[in-house]
Amino acid sequence: MSNNDLGPGERTKVRRLPGKANYDRETIYAILDEARLCHVAGIVDGSAMALPTLHAREGNTLYLHGSQSSAVMKAVVAAGEAFVTVTLYDGLRLARSGFESSIAYRSVALFGPTVELTDLAEKSRILDMFVDAILPGRASEVRSMNEREVNLTMVVAVDITEASAKISSGPTEDFPEDIDLPIWSGTVPAALIFTNPIANVDGAMASGEIPVPASVQRLLGQQ
Amino acid sequence: MSNNDLGPGERTKVRRLPGKANYDRETIYAILDEARLCHVAGIVDGSAMALPTLHAREGNTLYLHGSQSSAVMKAVVAAGEAFVTVTLYDGLRLARSGFESSIAYRSVALFGPTVELTDLAEKSRILDMFVDAILPGRASEVRSMNEREVNLTMVVAVDITEASAKISSGPTEDFPEDIDLPIWSGTVPAALIFTNPIANVDGAMASGEIPVPASVQRLLGQQ
Repeated sequence: MSNNDLGPGERTKVRRLPGKANYDRETIYAILDEARLCHVAGIVDGSAMALPTLHAREGNTLYLHGSQSSAVMKAVVAAGEAFVTVTLYDGLRLARSGFESSIAYRSVALFGPTVELTDLAEKSRILDMFVDAILPGRASEVRSMNEREVNLTMVVAVDITEASAKISSGPTEDFPEDIDLPIWSGTVPAALIFTNPIANVDGAMASGEIPVPASVQRLLGQQ
Repeated sequence: MSNNDLGPGERTKVRRLPGKANYDRETIYAILDEARLCHVAGIVDGSAMALPTLHAREGNTLYLHGSQSSAVMKAVVAAGEAFVTVTLYDGLRLARSGFESSIAYRSVALFGPTVELTDLAEKSRILDMFVDAILPGRASEVRSMNEREVNLTMVVAVDITEASAKISSGPTEDFPEDIDLPIWSGTVPAALIFTNPIANVDGAMASGEIPVPASVQRLLGQQ
């Protein structure tokens, strides 16, 4: 693997449809950053489990948001390693045969050693990163975390030792014997669209005088 | 658990934020059916892994689409059990504090014994279900599977022994001390929107005379 590659590694090498594989660091980072949640896999009581959680990336470190009561998060900390996957759904890839019909997607599988953060200031900084991962710019708009809140949240850092991306996009490739069938083939792109914000009506918000914040306006304006 | 419930079971009981838990069979089925992909967890070479794949549900059985080369699919067949999770991203839940800020989502975690299908006719029927899971109505529009294609695909049936749903939606609940802060709070719903189909230009499609099929028209019309 080159300096800019995170694979192919033993644990995350793409075996199925290797033509869709990509090990480029920047490609992998971009998919991680776009994904709004990840799935973390761990072994709990001898069985594999995977649960969704929030993540935020800084450099080659992926931070996972957890709670002290999450069995999977406790498992990946105890095991000292985590397997994380994110998948972006991009739409339909419709072929002339059922066999070649599929979805468009971009996924990342990554593997690396885990460390649970304990330093209060560092945890606090990463928790702000999670808020900005939910919505860029939001961390500076809200009441910041206090010590009790920082202590209630578990943050696990994963050093991305190896990773792979798998990208399925563009027109389907039908078998030569299917290509002249009178069946429509093509792609139908899909995108996640945010719609009109619904303001809470409790406390100071009840007056209706607090404007929609810049973070939300940017999100809606980008679409 | 009542007759209509799939939990709480030992493996899928919601421990974190149990107020969001739901074990009702119909609620769980609806989330599974809406999800366009799932993540399957398995143990490969002693480590937990989770990879995305397609699924289709019939009654209390969840079928997983795999390939003979998928390490995770081979692992769940060898283990005789699978843990599967699906997560639907529904938007932003913005609180006045970073701590209470989160996303809206609906997720399902399920667990059950696995059987790999071997009967050709039964596999063929389930593979058509996968095509309709990708896009309702599409299976009847395409060239149907032949024996070689059916043999190339792995189908694993999971009997849903236990499952849980977790649903996070609606306004955030800020702490009493935050409620009068002059900070906007509310939700921003998100939805997956399909956009204009892009027709392939190979084979018979090159003439531009094959109309967009009913399945795609229905999908676009429903939005």
